[in-house]
Amino acid sequence: MNDRRTSLIGASVPRPDAVDKVRGEARFADDLTFPGMLHGAVVRSPHPHARILNIDPSTALEDPDVVCVATHEDVPGTNIVHVIYDDQPALASETVRYLGEPVALVAATTRRAAKRAAEKVAVDYEELPVVDDPVMALEPGAPIIVADPAAAEGGGNCFNKMVLRKGDAEAGFAKADVIVEAEYATGYQEHAYIEPQGATAVPDDLGSIAIYGSVQCPFYVQNAAAKVMGLPLSKVRIVQTSTGGAFGGKEDVPSLICSLAAVMARKARRPVKLILDRGEDVLTTSKRHPSRVRYRTGAKSDGTITAIEVDVILNAGAYQTLSSAVLWRSLCTAAGPYRVPHVKVDARSVATNTVPNGAFRGFGSPQVIFPHESQMDLLADKLGIDRAEIRRRNLLIPGDETSTGQVVADSVGALDTLDQAIEMSEWPSLLERVAAFNASHDDRKRGVGLSSVIYGVGLGGKAPFLDKAGATMKLEADGSIAVAVGTVEMGQGLTTIMLQLAAEALGVPIDRVHMAPVDTSRVPDSGPTVASRGTMMSGLAVLDAAEKLKARIGAVASELGISAEETGTRLPEIASSFWLRNLDPAVEGWAETEPVSWDPETGLGDAYPVYAYATHVAEVEVDTATGEAHVVDFIAVHDSGIVLNRTLATGQVQGGIAQGIGFALMEEIPQREGRLIVNGLTTYRLPTVQDVAPSTKVGFVEAPFPSGPYGAKGIGEVPLMASHAAVARAVAHATGTRVNEYPLDPPRVRALFATVDRPS
Amino acid sequence: MNDRRTSLIGASVPRPDAVDKVRGEARFADDLTFPGMLHGAVVRSPHPHARILNIDPSTALEDPDVVCVATHEDVPGTNIVHVIYDDQPALASETVRYLGEPVALVAATTRRAAKRAAEKVAVDYEELPVVDDPVMALEPGAPIIVADPAAAEGGGNCFNKMVLRKGDAEAGFAKADVIVEAEYATGYQEHAYIEPQGATAVPDDLGSIAIYGSVQCPFYVQNAAAKVMGLPLSKVRIVQTSTGGAFGGKEDVPSLICSLAAVMARKARRPVKLILDRGEDVLTTSKRHPSRVRYRTGAKSDGTITAIEVDVILNAGAYQTLSSAVLWRSLCTAAGPYRVPHVKVDARSVATNTVPNGAFRGFGSPQVIFPHESQMDLLADKLGIDRAEIRRRNLLIPGDETSTGQVVADSVGALDTLDQAIEMSEWPSLLERVAAFNASHDDRKRGVGLSSVIYGVGLGGKAPFLDKAGATMKLEADGSIAVAVGTVEMGQGLTTIMLQLAAEALGVPIDRVHMAPVDTSRVPDSGPTVASRGTMMSGLAVLDAAEKLKARIGAVASELGISAEETGTRLPEIASSFWLRNLDPAVEGWAETEPVSWDPETGLGDAYPVYAYATHVAEVEVDTATGEAHVVDFIAVHDSGIVLNRTLATGQVQGGIAQGIGFALMEEIPQREGRLIVNGLTTYRLPTVQDVAPSTKVGFVEAPFPSGPYGAKGIGEVPLMASHAAVARAVAHATGTRVNEYPLDPPRVRALFATVDRPS
Repeated sequence: MNDRRTSLIGASVPRPDAVDKVRGEARFADDLTFPGMLHGAVVRSPHPHARILNIDPSTALEDPDVVCVATHEDVPGTNIVHVIYDDQPALASETVRYLGEPVALVAATTRRAAKRAAEKVAVDYEELPVVDDPVMALEPGAPIIVADPAAAEGGGNCFNKMVLRKGDAEAGFAKADVIVEAEYATGYQEHAYIEPQGATAVPDDLGSIAIYGSVQCPFYVQNAAAKVMGLPLSKVRIVQTSTGGAFGGKEDVPSLICSLAAVMARKARRPVKLILDRGEDVLTTSKRHPSRVRYRTGAKSDGTITAIEVDVILNAGAYQTLSSAVLWRSLCTAAGPYRVPHVKVDARSVATNTVPNGAFRGFGSPQVIFPHESQMDLLADKLGIDRAEIRRRNLLIPGDETSTGQVVADSVGALDTLDQAIEMSEWPSLLERVAAFNASHDDRKRGVGLSSVIYGVGLGGKAPFLDKAGATMKLEADGSIAVAVGTVEMGQGLTTIMLQLAAEALGVPIDRVHMAPVDTSRVPDSGPTVASRGTMMSGLAVLDAAEKLKARIGAVASELGISAEETGTRLPEIASSFWLRNLDPAVEGWAETEPVSWDPETGLGDAYPVYAYATHVAEVEVDTATGEAHVVDFIAVHDSGIVLNRTLATGQVQGGIAQGIGFALMEEIPQREGRLIVNGLTTYRLPTVQDVAPSTKVGFVEAPFPSGPYGAKGIGEVPLMASHAAVARAVAHATGTRVNEYPLDPPRVRALFATVDRPS
Repeated sequence: MNDRRTSLIGASVPRPDAVDKVRGEARFADDLTFPGMLHGAVVRSPHPHARILNIDPSTALEDPDVVCVATHEDVPGTNIVHVIYDDQPALASETVRYLGEPVALVAATTRRAAKRAAEKVAVDYEELPVVDDPVMALEPGAPIIVADPAAAEGGGNCFNKMVLRKGDAEAGFAKADVIVEAEYATGYQEHAYIEPQGATAVPDDLGSIAIYGSVQCPFYVQNAAAKVMGLPLSKVRIVQTSTGGAFGGKEDVPSLICSLAAVMARKARRPVKLILDRGEDVLTTSKRHPSRVRYRTGAKSDGTITAIEVDVILNAGAYQTLSSAVLWRSLCTAAGPYRVPHVKVDARSVATNTVPNGAFRGFGSPQVIFPHESQMDLLADKLGIDRAEIRRRNLLIPGDETSTGQVVADSVGALDTLDQAIEMSEWPSLLERVAAFNASHDDRKRGVGLSSVIYGVGLGGKAPFLDKAGATMKLEADGSIAVAVGTVEMGQGLTTIMLQLAAEALGVPIDRVHMAPVDTSRVPDSGPTVASRGTMMSGLAVLDAAEKLKARIGAVASELGISAEETGTRLPEIASSFWLRNLDPAVEGWAETEPVSWDPETGLGDAYPVYAYATHVAEVEVDTATGEAHVVDFIAVHDSGIVLNRTLATGQVQGGIAQGIGFALMEEIPQREGRLIVNGLTTYRLPTVQDVAPSTKVGFVEAPFPSGPYGAKGIGEVPLMASHAAVARAVAHATGTRVNEYPLDPPRVRALFATVDRPS
């Protein structure tokens, strides 16, 4: 079965889920109906911080379409949505801590009736002081707004506090010839998945509950809903519906949405569907953590970095959700893909009376990548070294230590991504062309930005227990193969990749393999579909299953006198023999991963099993009058190990570039007194096809990862991580200014030009 | 984990599915809805035999509620419903062979519209000669009505022809002191499941199809629908909905129903639900094969049987479906639970232009049990031996050979069932009481009937490849256990038994174990849920899985210093350790069975892995004027090996008694010229609670089966098998006549009395 070994790996196999999606036949969360199904609506707090004095559902209950109203008193289990720390109630009981926090639920026969009745649930509040800024929240004397002060690691409103201490930062700075220092800020970014949050909870057989939802992490939801419902995990079944995008936004939030639907379903004893409308979704669900980050970077005159010192503050919002994990990635990523002997990072996530922030593609790393790449340019400029060259001199090579002290030996393609990006962008002549353009244009200025990134694939040393994955595989009597995994297809292409891996490993045509729907009762807890881990983790589980099945197939083939070469094509015959002889055709696979570690005292350890790398080059043109910045060319080069499907990988990169352009140039949600100033996607500017350079080129350097499936690492988040900083640095280059805050929208870019003394 | 060993085995654990069913919350096939779902209706042949000249859907298509009409031309794969022989089309193309045969399908937005439009599909027929009687069908010169003459094993209209030749029957008869000979006939029996046939086919992800239906054998349906749809098995997923009874009626028929729904769903590209209404279901779906059976039995003067010669003719109806398998069980069961040295059986299933008959509890055995038990009484009467005593002298004991030459060694409780039935019924004094009653009553006569039966558990030597079963089991992080099997709960209690076995084997409280819904994509083909095999086969698979999981649990427990005794109660701690350490918590189990064999030339072999036995005693009172027979007392004693759940086993026996009473005394569907004379259940008389003796007693002798799960064999079909014959023999006793035909309804019993010369 090995003769086909290389045929599927890297092949641009078309995605089998495309047909249903293009034809509009894929069933998303809101497409499902169940007999007797009700529609739910959430009664939400109109205040960012208030005490609940009374909840009176009587007027709502007078509505003949209303079946029930549920409050925290109707939560059958524990009124906590479990994520990491248990501080967030499913339904607020005494205090609301952010605008939009769920206070009560209405289940009615129509969605309209539920929404209408939700407005009639009378809740009396006593408003409390609002803390909406993380820096102010940390000040002595700030009102303490956290739900569980004992769980605030940093004391007061400081949810999480982490350090990284490698070497001796002050000694490192002492060796530096030059030190650059700056403060950076980024704001909210909305996931803007095409499908809003939603789920239907269905009282299932045997006292169990099934929840069908648009989810990224079905096992997170299973865990959370089981606690809320007071049920054992075996009685809570999460079935993923076709998911219209997630980008991290469906990592933690569905645990709340699904739990709320389940509470209603239990009270009504009927299926209840809860779908957020877009306005509600944008206003009340997690976003990328706004950040304030201070960097100090020291280097020798040749550009060699000697030390960095970083202070990270993330605005976590009202509850902890995933903030500690997000912050940990900020911590580990702060030094970038560079060899830095002395590293000191202090990182805090801070409570405010704003929407709880959570996972978002990049997961805490974009907030430090924008700074670390800006610092590289500041150093380069100060030292008169080419911006690419200074990166080359510092990028990790095999045998180097990361900032957490981990020696990277295998699959370290950082430098190769830079070299290929330089080559593809024709770097020196690109700089010349830009200079020539700028010399001949006053109304428009061009700039070029470079960004190199490192990304630890998987969940890493802070939560090594989450890096697991199972798979099942069975040989059907006709020689077709059914495979199930526990990570989800959410647009990224996981289904295609799993099919490729299974078919490749078994040596069978890919159309003979089929993926079963994702259902938590099918496979063991396979961790979340996050951290660019799907390919690696579920892939390894599929390969483990395939290896076991292949051994059984081989034994039967050999009894039948079928050679190894013929096994793939004669599988129907072999399968038939399994069937006729009652041989067990099912296997179960499990992913074994490299050990990781983390010492919370020092922040040191083998943080991740492996790292992906990328270098992006953006060319931006800025209108000096309007301040409008526009990407005119883009080069992206990635090392994600062996590329399993070139079209899908390229698509991931292209999408990440677009999302990075949005983050750097336009996406923003202002906030005042805990109130997000946003009206769905109407007032939230997203990049469109017009904002992406048609000339964008994507390249791959494939440093094989021996422990990955066919040498693959992960890719999902990396393009977003690299792209925004390249764009921001290009704007800085174009404007000739420091760029310290996102988004670089026209007003801010106009302001940047205003700070520059330009010859007229 | 062994300390709890005996606590759950035999315990009357309450059924966990009871709550949903009692509350009306269980979701049966017709309770499901899907977005965009259409309703299907079947255009059926109004003729028992005709050539299709033309199908014109144009008028039907004018209906604005109609989405599509499908004919045989719309079958994407092979237009055959695969059961055993491939002779039955999903949709008739050239010829219809029974009244009600599907010719076309209509999918519309409502069920009413679909039904209405189905009547508007214009089909032109040319009527053909109808063969409605199997004996006439066998006559030379009878019109050949089979779809595939080449597949008619017996030539002409004889679908299947099997023989059993053990010893030398004529030599056996030569040794006999007495020979009795008679002909017996039974008619249709309708399954009368509480929920009619139905399913919804849903175009599923990735070009696959999911079918949610009321099914007994999801893997049969998967196989059949895959062929009809031209899809690999891995792309056809059958999900069993809560099933309101089956009794064999949902063994083969759902393959047709589900395939028809799937053909419509494919054409409409939308989910299509097809639910038969009761009249349609009774008229057009399989029933128990009507039979004509001739028996000749020889015995010595001490009652020892020397030989039997049997000729069995079953009316198969228009297509073969399961007839060969049904006939095989008639063949193997013909000699009953008795030691018969010389056996000659000829068995034929014959095509007629009537509804194709299929599986029904007992599966071809009731048609020979009624005769073989009647013959025993005839011999007893002729020899002046007590009816119980003659059975005792012939019943199989360990070491004996069955009629197929199989030596039964373990778990042979036949004689024990007789002895216990004799004891419970106070046999000799019962006979005296009845005689006294009859002596003092003219208007009513009482009679006592005995029936002993043997039942081969499982599918046996004719289809050994079907006796397989898989299971999956996973330990959740909270110590709860999720189990999946491939056989179904259809009211018989399988879910409860599986939970008991899993909990017992793992040594955990039963409420910690949960069954996943049955879905063909979850577990390997586990064969059908028939032949009283669920407990044995899925039970063995569950035990295999439990053993594997227990070994893993034990290893972790030992690392944690948890003793074997504490493992069950400290499982949450152990499970948590699995989770934290990324240990694989999932296993897959497979049932290994005893080898079976069958030589089609002689009919000899080790037909079944093991046999269940029962003896029933019925006391019947007959109104001499009206002919109404009524069961006044009933004793049932079973050897089904170790009883796993006494309440469930007792319930199975009670239900089987009721169904047997119906078969013997009242259930009948006349047939004229291929037309069943029946109007749903309105004109089909079923037993009610009034027909069952409140004094009914059920007993168990538990001859452990070493290869069964905790010593269990199977029970489902056995009570039906034994009960009807006991009732019929009691009527014979009460009337003092030969009884040769079912049902013994008032007209027939009045006729029996008319043949008797009674003192007035």
